[in-house]
Amino acid sequence: MSSTLSFTVFKGSEDGAPKKSTVLKSDQTVEDQVLVRVTASGLCGTDLHYKHIDMVLGHEGIGIVEAVGPDVKKLQKGDRVGWGYETDACGLCKYCLRGEETFCSQRALYGERNLDQGSFASHAIWREAFLHPIPEAISDEDAAPLQCGGATVFTALQNLGSNETIGIMGVGGLGHLAIQFAAKMGQRVVVLSGSERKRDQAMKLGAHQFISSEKGFQELGDWKLTRLLVTTSVQPAWDSILPLMAPKSTIFPLSVSSDNLNIPYMPLILQGINIQGSMVATRAVHRDMLEFAALHNIRPIIEKFSMSEDGIKKAMDKLEAGKVNYRAVLIV
Amino acid sequence: MSSTLSFTVFKGSEDGAPKKSTVLKSDQTVEDQVLVRVTASGLCGTDLHYKHIDMVLGHEGIGIVEAVGPDVKKLQKGDRVGWGYETDACGLCKYCLRGEETFCSQRALYGERNLDQGSFASHAIWREAFLHPIPEAISDEDAAPLQCGGATVFTALQNLGSNETIGIMGVGGLGHLAIQFAAKMGQRVVVLSGSERKRDQAMKLGAHQFISSEKGFQELGDWKLTRLLVTTSVQPAWDSILPLMAPKSTIFPLSVSSDNLNIPYMPLILQGINIQGSMVATRAVHRDMLEFAALHNIRPIIEKFSMSEDGIKKAMDKLEAGKVNYRAVLIV
Repeated sequence: MSSTLSFTVFKGSEDGAPKKSTVLKSDQTVEDQVLVRVTASGLCGTDLHYKHIDMVLGHEGIGIVEAVGPDVKKLQKGDRVGWGYETDACGLCKYCLRGEETFCSQRALYGERNLDQGSFASHAIWREAFLHPIPEAISDEDAAPLQCGGATVFTALQNLGSNETIGIMGVGGLGHLAIQFAAKMGQRVVVLSGSERKRDQAMKLGAHQFISSEKGFQELGDWKLTRLLVTTSVQPAWDSILPLMAPKSTIFPLSVSSDNLNIPYMPLILQGINIQGSMVATRAVHRDMLEFAALHNIRPIIEKFSMSEDGIKKAMDKLEAGKVNYRAVLIV
Repeated sequence: MSSTLSFTVFKGSEDGAPKKSTVLKSDQTVEDQVLVRVTASGLCGTDLHYKHIDMVLGHEGIGIVEAVGPDVKKLQKGDRVGWGYETDACGLCKYCLRGEETFCSQRALYGERNLDQGSFASHAIWREAFLHPIPEAISDEDAAPLQCGGATVFTALQNLGSNETIGIMGVGGLGHLAIQFAAKMGQRVVVLSGSERKRDQAMKLGAHQFISSEKGFQELGDWKLTRLLVTTSVQPAWDSILPLMAPKSTIFPLSVSSDNLNIPYMPLILQGINIQGSMVATRAVHRDMLEFAALHNIRPIIEKFSMSEDGIKKAMDKLEAGKVNYRAVLIV
């Protein structure tokens, strides 16, 4: 005899304020599904893009396994898990077979599929294969921002040489994690910021050099960037960036932007510069990221809010105003 | 006792017509220098960019070694050699040490250095290390367009997977070589053209599919491009190209253009698309290209002109009008 499970969820709404709601699911956890009780969730810039949509918000979820379906192989009740921007893929296409399931044409991405579930919620049900065990060393609240913010910048730091000069543009939710990851990877880290304000913090996080656009990025000197992660919320002035790039370097634009990419053309050709579109982490990279963060004590700087209509609204308003101290985390 | 060697050269001029001139050099071939008697030269789009400049034109040279300096190690009088867009580099920087001398900060590129020599000439003197032996199977006139056009597209076809779908946009001097190279590499080749006119020729050169923008590139169907070489003389309408690209695919824009690159942004991110600026071939790749062309009988389709003021002008006018049958070659 099956009965019903009732989740609390927080959805976008017409006026942009998060609305508490209820989702009903069967209490029978079937197939490879895992019922997770949410303990913490990060708040990401992408959540703001969906705040007017009637869908459950949140995609940096951390929680405890409460029940597992009959086909679940490894996870057990009580395990601590996280999930991010992608929660399903077909498993059969060439991209999935290559471990590049983030480019599966049937990928379930936040905002596109599974709109009745999210991490701004009391519970969620996901397939085992898209849940990531959280290393013991990392707390729930610290693990949350790693599920998308951390995973995204870690993805843009794959396949590095052993002596690169990595530019991190923007010292915010993504940037402050990227600085730590790149520094612990042994790379030379140059932070590019709009102002001098975050110099001390950036150096503390592991940067070797801090240059600000206030001074026209003049301070870079001879160390050209072999890779640049653009983590600002809007696209930068590309013409001021290109002179900083080394020959054969790569730019990862990680901003979300509806504008075109409009960038000087011949410098790209003459210096062999590469612009690499990059999405969220594959699951394999996601797990590497968690293990790397655990080993090297990489943690987000967070500001906590309560998992409630009021708490979420406060966090979203503050993020929108650019005033969150690095990363907002909602705590149940 | 040293005397003087007098070369005939053809230079750009104020009115854009090639001007015959004379260059005087010492007849002592010193150090690692090699005196080459030019037998043929390709004409490349880039030459048109310099036609108003007081410099010797031409950078797709083929000739016979006439004399070698005391430090020359392998080349001998009578050897057949070619050269392309780059004729020197420092040999000591990190890029040179990696075999990426095309990005050496002291690289000698056509139009930037050594302006008193070129392949529109009777002779030229270059360092041994920047001259490439021409395989016996390839005639002088066929080898000429490979020195830049062939080398450029071969560079954009490095590090391929074993089952890619390569788009070649534009069936001209570069495109008709790219089709042949990609097909002989065993890749699936899709030609994108502005009109139906070149369909038969493209298929004969080895294309598996031909799609034209006249029909909005609708014919591509399910085979998305994993790599696209844009060989048109102007940048294409990028918004019509992006839907043809596979996830994680790479675009090589090979056009020379003073306009910005202006391309829809979010598709790059969501599909993980890569825009790879690419220059001329390194010397190692240049030699691979020549050997590959010899083995697989890859030859340019050429139209011959005489190495004279009149012949060069005719060739340049025809190229400018877009009427050259694939690649113009000047014959001494």
